[in-house]
Amino acid sequence: MNTIGKLYTLTSFGESHGEALGGVIDGCPAGIALSLDEIQRELDRRRPGQSEVTTARAEEDRVEILSGVFEGITTGMPIGFIIRNKDQRSRDYHEMKDLFRPSHADYTMQAKYGIRDYRGGGRTSAREHVARVVGGAVARQVLKLRGVSIHGYTSQVGSVVLDKRYDELDMEETERNIVRCPDQETAREMERLIREVQVGRDSVGGVVSCVIRGVPVGIGEPVFDRFQARLGYYMMGINAAKGFEYGEGFRAAGMRGSEHNDAFVMKNGQVSTLTNHAGGILGGITSGEDIYFRVAFKPVATIGREQETVNLSGEEVTFTAGGRHDPCVVPRAVPVVEAMAAMLVLDMMLEAGKATCNL
Amino acid sequence: MNTIGKLYTLTSFGESHGEALGGVIDGCPAGIALSLDEIQRELDRRRPGQSEVTTARAEEDRVEILSGVFEGITTGMPIGFIIRNKDQRSRDYHEMKDLFRPSHADYTMQAKYGIRDYRGGGRTSAREHVARVVGGAVARQVLKLRGVSIHGYTSQVGSVVLDKRYDELDMEETERNIVRCPDQETAREMERLIREVQVGRDSVGGVVSCVIRGVPVGIGEPVFDRFQARLGYYMMGINAAKGFEYGEGFRAAGMRGSEHNDAFVMKNGQVSTLTNHAGGILGGITSGEDIYFRVAFKPVATIGREQETVNLSGEEVTFTAGGRHDPCVVPRAVPVVEAMAAMLVLDMMLEAGKATCNL
Amino acid sequence: MNTIGKLYTLTSFGESHGEALGGVIDGCPAGIALSLDEIQRELDRRRPGQSEVTTARAEEDRVEILSGVFEGITTGMPIGFIIRNKDQRSRDYHEMKDLFRPSHADYTMQAKYGIRDYRGGGRTSAREHVARVVGGAVARQVLKLRGVSIHGYTSQVGSVVLDKRYDELDMEETERNIVRCPDQETAREMERLIREVQVGRDSVGGVVSCVIRGVPVGIGEPVFDRFQARLGYYMMGINAAKGFEYGEGFRAAGMRGSEHNDAFVMKNGQVSTLTNHAGGILGGITSGEDIYFRVAFKPVATIGREQETVNLSGEEVTFTAGGRHDPCVVPRAVPVVEAMAAMLVLDMMLEAGKATCNL
Amino acid sequence: MNTIGKLYTLTSFGESHGEALGGVIDGCPAGIALSLDEIQRELDRRRPGQSEVTTARAEEDRVEILSGVFEGITTGMPIGFIIRNKDQRSRDYHEMKDLFRPSHADYTMQAKYGIRDYRGGGRTSAREHVARVVGGAVARQVLKLRGVSIHGYTSQVGSVVLDKRYDELDMEETERNIVRCPDQETAREMERLIREVQVGRDSVGGVVSCVIRGVPVGIGEPVFDRFQARLGYYMMGINAAKGFEYGEGFRAAGMRGSEHNDAFVMKNGQVSTLTNHAGGILGGITSGEDIYFRVAFKPVATIGREQETVNLSGEEVTFTAGGRHDPCVVPRAVPVVEAMAAMLVLDMMLEAGKATCNL
Repeated sequence: MNTIGKLYTLTSFGESHGEALGGVIDGCPAGIALSLDEIQRELDRRRPGQSEVTTARAEEDRVEILSGVFEGITTGMPIGFIIRNKDQRSRDYHEMKDLFRPSHADYTMQAKYGIRDYRGGGRTSAREHVARVVGGAVARQVLKLRGVSIHGYTSQVGSVVLDKRYDELDMEETERNIVRCPDQETAREMERLIREVQVGRDSVGGVVSCVIRGVPVGIGEPVFDRFQARLGYYMMGINAAKGFEYGEGFRAAGMRGSEHNDAFVMKNGQVSTLTNHAGGILGGITSGEDIYFRVAFKPVATIGREQETVNLSGEEVTFTAGGRHDPCVVPRAVPVVEAMAAMLVLDMMLEAGKATCNL
Repeated sequence: MNTIGKLYTLTSFGESHGEALGGVIDGCPAGIALSLDEIQRELDRRRPGQSEVTTARAEEDRVEILSGVFEGITTGMPIGFIIRNKDQRSRDYHEMKDLFRPSHADYTMQAKYGIRDYRGGGRTSAREHVARVVGGAVARQVLKLRGVSIHGYTSQVGSVVLDKRYDELDMEETERNIVRCPDQETAREMERLIREVQVGRDSVGGVVSCVIRGVPVGIGEPVFDRFQARLGYYMMGINAAKGFEYGEGFRAAGMRGSEHNDAFVMKNGQVSTLTNHAGGILGGITSGEDIYFRVAFKPVATIGREQETVNLSGEEVTFTAGGRHDPCVVPRAVPVVEAMAAMLVLDMMLEAGKATCNL
Repeated sequence: MNTIGKLYTLTSFGESHGEALGGVIDGCPAGIALSLDEIQRELDRRRPGQSEVTTARAEEDRVEILSGVFEGITTGMPIGFIIRNKDQRSRDYHEMKDLFRPSHADYTMQAKYGIRDYRGGGRTSAREHVARVVGGAVARQVLKLRGVSIHGYTSQVGSVVLDKRYDELDMEETERNIVRCPDQETAREMERLIREVQVGRDSVGGVVSCVIRGVPVGIGEPVFDRFQARLGYYMMGINAAKGFEYGEGFRAAGMRGSEHNDAFVMKNGQVSTLTNHAGGILGGITSGEDIYFRVAFKPVATIGREQETVNLSGEEVTFTAGGRHDPCVVPRAVPVVEAMAAMLVLDMMLEAGKATCNL
Repeated sequence: MNTIGKLYTLTSFGESHGEALGGVIDGCPAGIALSLDEIQRELDRRRPGQSEVTTARAEEDRVEILSGVFEGITTGMPIGFIIRNKDQRSRDYHEMKDLFRPSHADYTMQAKYGIRDYRGGGRTSAREHVARVVGGAVARQVLKLRGVSIHGYTSQVGSVVLDKRYDELDMEETERNIVRCPDQETAREMERLIREVQVGRDSVGGVVSCVIRGVPVGIGEPVFDRFQARLGYYMMGINAAKGFEYGEGFRAAGMRGSEHNDAFVMKNGQVSTLTNHAGGILGGITSGEDIYFRVAFKPVATIGREQETVNLSGEEVTFTAGGRHDPCVVPRAVPVVEAMAAMLVLDMMLEAGKATCNL
């Protein structure tokens, strides 16, 4: 189904080359002065064509809010919004009508539904993420009033790995380069690699890291609805995501308890931990420490090389993708990771009674 | 909340040292001849005290089915079950009443609820997993009739890493050693490491790998309810899980599209892929290929060494854990990973209309 | 929250005098040739200004489908749609900004959310029903292919009561008069009463009856999700609904078991009942017999007479409503009752596996 | 599915003649001192065999709480409970194994699931209500701390109708007679009628009325999740319920707006209404006034007379019911109506943030 969340929900609709994409945000607290500029800014961060290393599709991606806001203030009613598709060069995709692009959803969609809107991947296009970015941009504005901040950044592109922890980085640096890596030197290497890959008509994967600060103690539940379980669900629901880890993540598998355990100490009269290997979550419930996590993305499936595949009639054929595509999805995935995180945090804060109407 | 699933659901209840743990399985198709022995066998696989490298707590963990089965056949009605706690040496835990064990949920539970059953971790104990094992054991029996099999195994313990792919292993070998690693040589190394860690009053983390075979094409949805998103949610909801990846996972971040893409080919008149880097899921929907994934576990938080912490009064204190605990949770996590996977697969097959009442 | 349904869901948004109303239909089976004309026809049946006895607000209520339909066929993807507001004479309502209209939601909305879009009742206006009518019109087209039909009609307006059972009436007659009563003589009386009430600057209540035919045996569940429980939820969620009954309804309270019981008989090799006091549902599950039910509506709260009330400052004041309003909501509630019923039946048929993708 | 509620949920399991019935209460706020005696008292009110006019089945219905309560205080964890079946005279029902009792769920259950536990109606027996009574008894204790009270009573048995409004009655009188009617004279008439019906080997229907006092302003939502819609769902989910109405209910259909509207006035500095035709709900949201509603029950389907029916082989047969049964279900339905109302009110108060953990 196309709704995510329990108390703060986003229902998303729309195809890559249809009339419009959009969604309905439900459960947004009333009384929030909503900045449309901030929503638009997040959309612009995800927008294709924003730099030389992203797809040339020049979408404006202008959001139109249709309800739920009265005289600039949220009313607690559902916020309907649409983003019209403008640059729909469907003819680019017409040739793909009858074949299944490798590592795309063409085959599974056709098999499941018996029909698919093949234009640009239809509903399975990463373009669907615009709805999430809007949902996240609204959530962020509520969270900001509660002192919660969310920062994502590119920490790996192919073989180029940023080997610094989130707390050694200045997040303000992130937007200063087109790959969204807060370390400028690593950013240049990443950019170089992406251009190289692009020239080779190939694509490359990467990792987005993210830190959430200011979440109060007590968000999440001890059994199924652990904060990390729902965060994992939100992140693994992003196109091309292949892995999720938080705190020490997979590194923890190689550690000893004496090394991984975080001693409790008192800090300014508050229970705190000396280290934060746990990543801000204990027993599924936030501890008040920073929450940090990483999401792995596979290389973009669309590449400019000839590939072998099968068509609708079950014949083996070769094809070379036309259309526009990114050589590396990771820089544009950063605002999507942040948006999903924002929606989840607000949802779970509402559930824990920590983000009620009267902020 | 303590319910997981949409159409095949498990509602779990119970504390480590309370009267009983148990649950309600809802949505199980009617007409299934249910083997109680198979359920009990799965519980025995998770049972503490099953080998020298697991905790000595000698629970019988005998399940009692209270409803939903009539003359040995499921009726489609909810299956209520309980497992009485027998070996409740609560006094072992009495000393922990007033302090927060490092990297346990004591502090966050107290902060969230203002009260907690401190005996053995109460609800946050991994003992809660017995309910999931029952839920999974029932699901497995339904899945077996549909040709779906699930095999989990230990692929890493601390520094000992099994460097074979799932398809190079004989899953029948898994239960032949106490660490549940299908490669006997690696198993011996893992066992050696666990004993060494145990002697050093420490604990160690690890990884469970799992493969699901026989899931038909078309399970999962293209946007939020991707198969991998819900699988990630189920896995990250297991105690001590720190990371989840499927297919190439985090390795995909370092790969090129030309390397990661799986070419479509025809096999026996069926659309198939030449390689399976994708891990059996395309655009959130199963492709019919094997689904494989990995879950990272942190080292057990309870260790027999003196640690620094804070008590209920906000005083910094030291303590050394008594009670019984595993030096490595991974071997006993294998049946839990399988159980969670089984519940998810059945749930999503029911949602896709692929596992209806009349099997 | 603004989503209804489990597998066939409608998420609704929009205010009476905002930019647009609309919604997202999720879970519609793929492969349905969707007629936009039929959707529009249902909207026209609910449209204000359609006759002399309804409000003069001349909305066009033209629906625009934004997604989920490709070349005229549903794709299984969410169907987003909007209906732009055109005739927004907000000034009519400006005077109501600061006061609470009696028996309207002004006071409770203000108390709950601390803010409200007062223009025409904002989100609480019956105008929100347009989204439901679209959701129902799509569901009906799916149901039609499965042999299910739904007929609603006005069976009471104030003191004028239609004293015939649904099976004594010709449903084709319903649309032949402006009150939607299939008995032309009773219809004339109803119309006369409504005009009389209108002249007296008053309003009047009524009842909508409805029959659903062709639902297969086995829809609904025996405990909480009884067909009638969910039907009751759908009906009581319509503006101004005050009561719901099915089968003999409140009359059953006065009956004996020997009188109310329906004997089972064989009809054409099928188990059937001699009578159908039960209203087509036994133990929460449909029996294959006709499902009939009734919904009571209160008189419209807006009347052209001076009334006493309280304003935002807590002062007692008098006011006389301006704006446009129906003297009797019942004729226009008929398509809404049908729409809600259609959405429910499809939702529950999907849940029971009786309306899968491949019709 | 067998779970009801969103934030305060009950998952119910068990059959009339199985091992045990029970349930899991989830979402109960932490920190409540829970009285088991009060829970048992509610079970005793529903218990069969409590008077001469109810079934002679002598169940003890003793509840055993298995989790979620620590040293007498709720912990916020799920409360698992069971009630063992003791007086299981299954042989009484053996003869019904192969036939469909008229107006019972035998036929629809068999048709839907292909199998059924025929003993005493299995899961479809009103005995399942014990789980709801426990869920309601816990909710009531939380609500009591918030100043909410719920009173149900028998207001009609067959032709005997109590013609007083709830506010003309002394609710303390309700438990002073075996039919649970607070007017002693009417009670005697009802009792007389039930005995007469009993002698005639027949059964009779009736109505339960209920008033909820003390619910704060602002509970419920304006569109689908109206307070009355969810209340209707809860009530129509009770065995044998045929109709639901609140406020003026079906009477409102015959009223004029000028007569039905409730003028707002100031009372003790609070916005209030002069009359309360609305029944305490405006636009789906509680207004702070009393909430009153009525639920119609059909006559018990099991009667001691010969009836015509059909058996599993599709043959028309006659049968006369043995077993134990009530001639009128209404007196014992009173605690069930109250329990369902209590669960709903707490659920919706939690959703509105009006019944958080820290009471």
